[in-house]
Amino acid sequence: MTPRVVVLTGGVGGAKLVLGLAQILPPSNLTAIVNTGDDFTHLGLAISPDIDTLLYTLSGKANAAQGWGREGESWSFMSALRTLGGADWFQLGDGDLALHILRTDARAQGQPLSQIVANFAQAWNVGPAVLPMTNDPVATMLTTDEGELDFQHYFVARRCAPVVRAIRFQGAAQARPAPCVLAAIAQADAILIAPSNPYLSIDPILAVPGIAAALAGAKAAVVAISPIVGGQAVKGPTAKLMAELGIAITNTAIATHYRAVLNGLLLDERDPPADPGVTFATADTLMHTLEDRIRVARAALVLAEQISKSRPQ
Amino acid sequence: MTPRVVVLTGGVGGAKLVLGLAQILPPSNLTAIVNTGDDFTHLGLAISPDIDTLLYTLSGKANAAQGWGREGESWSFMSALRTLGGADWFQLGDGDLALHILRTDARAQGQPLSQIVANFAQAWNVGPAVLPMTNDPVATMLTTDEGELDFQHYFVARRCAPVVRAIRFQGAAQARPAPCVLAAIAQADAILIAPSNPYLSIDPILAVPGIAAALAGAKAAVVAISPIVGGQAVKGPTAKLMAELGIAITNTAIATHYRAVLNGLLLDERDPPADPGVTFATADTLMHTLEDRIRVARAALVLAEQISKSRPQ
Repeated sequence: MTPRVVVLTGGVGGAKLVLGLAQILPPSNLTAIVNTGDDFTHLGLAISPDIDTLLYTLSGKANAAQGWGREGESWSFMSALRTLGGADWFQLGDGDLALHILRTDARAQGQPLSQIVANFAQAWNVGPAVLPMTNDPVATMLTTDEGELDFQHYFVARRCAPVVRAIRFQGAAQARPAPCVLAAIAQADAILIAPSNPYLSIDPILAVPGIAAALAGAKAAVVAISPIVGGQAVKGPTAKLMAELGIAITNTAIATHYRAVLNGLLLDERDPPADPGVTFATADTLMHTLEDRIRVARAALVLAEQISKSRPQ
Repeated sequence: MTPRVVVLTGGVGGAKLVLGLAQILPPSNLTAIVNTGDDFTHLGLAISPDIDTLLYTLSGKANAAQGWGREGESWSFMSALRTLGGADWFQLGDGDLALHILRTDARAQGQPLSQIVANFAQAWNVGPAVLPMTNDPVATMLTTDEGELDFQHYFVARRCAPVVRAIRFQGAAQARPAPCVLAAIAQADAILIAPSNPYLSIDPILAVPGIAAALAGAKAAVVAISPIVGGQAVKGPTAKLMAELGIAITNTAIATHYRAVLNGLLLDERDPPADPGVTFATADTLMHTLEDRIRVARAALVLAEQISKSRPQ
């Protein structure tokens, strides 16, 4: 029987794994639960960067080179915006604006984000379910040596330069999981945590009340794909952030971080396993090509299946 | 002394006259009072078509061939919008979106339209004052054989096909002239009414309480440039609309329509003067080239000056 798979994911890095999973699973068997802690309002537009990266990736519209935004994007809006003195630190492509404008309009009319995203996915024939973690506002806020910054000001405007002291998820305590999130976790045969940034992309999902408990109580094994490769974080600010938070850049640290929900860890073949021991498997976890993504997806599913089979029935 | 000139105008046609005036007057001597009855909210964006046509025209950014929108515009947004099933009957160019998004955001933050437009004009080095007729919502509504339509649904979506029975300006009775509108009229040495559609583009301005009275009481002569050339309306739905409203397509009808505020009429040399007589002058009023626009602007100012000089001091 083909397993029903849930994957918790952020944007660019996680979307690679989800794309790999989408190659080997029937669309109806794959559900992505996506971080919305990066969502923000810019120039009055409601922007959901990680959700949109998933939609672009799964519909074949993603810019392969940069990992975010659309392939073949044009930039007339940004040019005109600059002539008017508008804030230009966040890049909004001309085609990309369609998602933001329609989402903003639909939200103003009272539609929940999950419904809006489902409509987008349907229009673009995206088969897997793309679920925001919540329809309620959650904002990833970073306490830094430059004061408190929201995610996009830290990540995009300041290019991760500020030293991070602490991270909080504003609004998370009052947030509810979006429709279908808890049911998808409960019904899953395998649950994966994508190699996204654990502190910035996965923790916001786990901070929504009910999600971590659902993972811990799920019948399926929960397997994380480590974001560490060769003793370094694969990409982005993960390594710098871990160092600033006083965390060793090791699989032990990753396993420890996820310990409340984790049953297994897929780690890169170049790295030592986590200590204290967590059930693990190794693979080449770098995902440059589509074949890489499929390989990592398969390895993670095999590990999840092994853990499930070893459990007392 | 260079005269201070006020011009009441709609979009495309009127902008040609304003551009002609801008060639022969110092920027600080020219004020355009612009129709906002066409303004509407589309996909959540606050759109002011006539204002924007003035801004594009006076900043040298207008698409010369079509008269609206930007020269060299790109259309990635519309393409993406269509793939998402978004409403695509109103064309929004990629660069054009900068005005709409910034305006919508500024209005949501409480800025009045007049301030927003002044900021845009300053950013683009538009010298003449571009004043919305009002900062309050006014919507031109047409009673047609297809029911009541707002202006853009009549003009753009239905391409003026419905038969018009009546026109009203929703909200006009509660609207106040925007800042500087009444002062500009009071201080003007000449007041022109552009050859815009009298019923759809100029009447909304005259419907804002205080503006018609200010024109009637102004020290300056009020001169309209007739929208009729060779017994036909120059462009757009004017002739069809006049016929549907039971109005003869004559300068007499134009003079009669504006009689409460009008002192003179500049009409095309191909047409007979208005009857009953209004002070008039003739010119070739077709405005294809910039030279045409300057010629018409000069002829209108000459007529206004003649009327002023003939008045008892």
